[in-house]
Amino acid sequence: MSLIVQKYGGSSVADADRIKNVARRVIRTKEQGNQVVVVASAMGETTDELIQLARQVADEPDDRELDLLLSTGEVVSCTLLTMALRSMGQKAISLTGAQAGIRTDSTYSKARITGISPKRISRELEKGQIVIVTGFQGVNDELDITTLGRGGSDTTAVALAISLAADRCEIYTDVDGVYITDPRLVPQARKLEEIGYEEMLEMASVGTRVLHPRAVELGWVYGMPIMVASSFNDSPGTLIRGGVPMEIRNKVSGIAHDFNMAKVTVIGVPDKPGIASAIFEALARANISVDTIVQNASINRITDLTFTVAKSDLNKAMEVIKPVAESIGARNCTSDATLGKVSIVGAGMQTAPGYAARMFKTLAENEINIELIATSEIRITCIIDGEKIPQAVQALHRAFEGYI
Amino acid sequence: MSLIVQKYGGSSVADADRIKNVARRVIRTKEQGNQVVVVASAMGETTDELIQLARQVADEPDDRELDLLLSTGEVVSCTLLTMALRSMGQKAISLTGAQAGIRTDSTYSKARITGISPKRISRELEKGQIVIVTGFQGVNDELDITTLGRGGSDTTAVALAISLAADRCEIYTDVDGVYITDPRLVPQARKLEEIGYEEMLEMASVGTRVLHPRAVELGWVYGMPIMVASSFNDSPGTLIRGGVPMEIRNKVSGIAHDFNMAKVTVIGVPDKPGIASAIFEALARANISVDTIVQNASINRITDLTFTVAKSDLNKAMEVIKPVAESIGARNCTSDATLGKVSIVGAGMQTAPGYAARMFKTLAENEINIELIATSEIRITCIIDGEKIPQAVQALHRAFEGYI
Repeated sequence: MSLIVQKYGGSSVADADRIKNVARRVIRTKEQGNQVVVVASAMGETTDELIQLARQVADEPDDRELDLLLSTGEVVSCTLLTMALRSMGQKAISLTGAQAGIRTDSTYSKARITGISPKRISRELEKGQIVIVTGFQGVNDELDITTLGRGGSDTTAVALAISLAADRCEIYTDVDGVYITDPRLVPQARKLEEIGYEEMLEMASVGTRVLHPRAVELGWVYGMPIMVASSFNDSPGTLIRGGVPMEIRNKVSGIAHDFNMAKVTVIGVPDKPGIASAIFEALARANISVDTIVQNASINRITDLTFTVAKSDLNKAMEVIKPVAESIGARNCTSDATLGKVSIVGAGMQTAPGYAARMFKTLAENEINIELIATSEIRITCIIDGEKIPQAVQALHRAFEGYI
Repeated sequence: MSLIVQKYGGSSVADADRIKNVARRVIRTKEQGNQVVVVASAMGETTDELIQLARQVADEPDDRELDLLLSTGEVVSCTLLTMALRSMGQKAISLTGAQAGIRTDSTYSKARITGISPKRISRELEKGQIVIVTGFQGVNDELDITTLGRGGSDTTAVALAISLAADRCEIYTDVDGVYITDPRLVPQARKLEEIGYEEMLEMASVGTRVLHPRAVELGWVYGMPIMVASSFNDSPGTLIRGGVPMEIRNKVSGIAHDFNMAKVTVIGVPDKPGIASAIFEALARANISVDTIVQNASINRITDLTFTVAKSDLNKAMEVIKPVAESIGARNCTSDATLGKVSIVGAGMQTAPGYAARMFKTLAENEINIELIATSEIRITCIIDGEKIPQAVQALHRAFEGYI
């Protein structure tokens, strides 16, 4: 008997019919002789609606209260799914993050899981129950509810799979796997049967949005195989796992993009030790994730420092940065919230310089200006005008078709 | 410094503006030098909407899951109220039933509070916080969420006031106190300045719906004064307390009604010991509250037994009763779901038989047929056609005007 953890995203449980559909899928897995733990996200746009509600009563809702508020979304979807399963004759029970033993730190709205005590889950599984666990949430040492941030339900599912020593973690969403690039932009894009954790991580963090990067990281560290597939059909998904054979490396395994980037430039920074750390420590303390960082070559020991953040973090980032910039003697801070990024991803890319050249040439031929360039061992990223993202992705797909 | 527990009902927190309005009222109480604990119900019709959602996925939603589902309604309203208070510069924190230490038994959907450990509340009050507690919910020994049933937030407020040794419990709702009868039916009905627990109990349990009877009972047992007032204006409410002076007794203190009654008659019951207990124990085990019970005089040792239940409990009651009726040799069971009840309430009524006669005569003059009659020491109740309730209340108000 295998133990399988399945996660269903918000669009998969968006209404009563879809919840019943998910219940039938869960039952099928159970009837194949498996123990099943299900993690569900909040229904449809619930989380956004709750945030809007919060903004109606407070300009800047308190983080602790917001987490407690948002945690209700997953309780609603999970209890409904459990009711559906029970009305179909199954033994099922739903557990909140706290009841499921998911402990986190106290970083409200972006909490990290510190540990899981799955005793209650195991007890219910032994009774033959299907166990439904609210995604996205946990509880800190004070027993206050925390949330894991956007996409946190993926992290919940993978973390539960690891702590229960599950055989596999299955992430069901509204796309049927990981594509070489976004099929909404490039309809002929091919689906990958499998992909390594590392490449998936580059794909996810640059915006394919199939799976939250923290979930991939966790899977990677603990070697938990993760299947990504659609909850709307039975087409085979993409398996993310370690040990993907060498011969499928050294290729472009994906073209990823992200529309919602903002760029911050600190102008006239004295080029001396400690400056970068002053800036990025301040951002880290404010819990703002910085994406790409570029520092220009300095002229007369004065340089410019540019970095990108999610568009939604821009206002907070500017607030944090301005006093720091002043204190380090920088001349000015500017920002641009109209950017996007496009990346090509593939293992071994760094050792094959032809890829970067081809990417830059493709963008140039399409008259797309590159604002910033950043590279990793397996990824080349260009920050460009956000409106030109679809054109760029399509052009890059054509240019790299032979290498995919 | 006084400690005041305030409860705001669903209509008082139905939208963002009303929540801000409640926040301002809470702040006023705080700024008068009081410590404040606030209990809030779910926003507007949230609870009903969640129940509808549950019925979309399951014909008979599981009780445990339903309680967990419904508990989210109060979390939403309480976190929003807390955010509003904080954005107005106050120190405030919201606590779920579990966090507030509200322990209950495991009778899902109708749980009873077994005890309250208000340590966390006291700790937050000492820090100068306004503490917002979710009404209607608690947690059992397994740490599973339970709900207290309809009107349970009133019970939460009074129970918290008692366990915190508060100076007063204030219940804010959409009516501005306890009226002699429903002002929607009798516009000239007078508001009471104060009323004894016992009379209030008869008023509440027969349907004035200002305050849940369990809350009044609790207040009575522990001598906690309860002020009922409107959250929409500053008009003085009605104080429910012990020791209301003798001279205001021996009067009609109210005319109450309830539209949603159903009647069950078990026909042809052998008139022998143990029959009534067989029936009502079965109903009790199914957690169905029986209201009025009438057993007719028996003919040839065969009698009919009639009782009323809330209309919403009728189907369940019939399911429970049918096999019992068969096993005790009754001939048949019938039911009627179109009834209502109307009562006159007043201390010492039983010792003044003129009241009953006047009541029956008034109904007869209005051609309203009486289906069942039941009396207590301080109440006379008639079960009548539900559609005739408004006419009956108006006629009774006219008839008893001089006695009020």
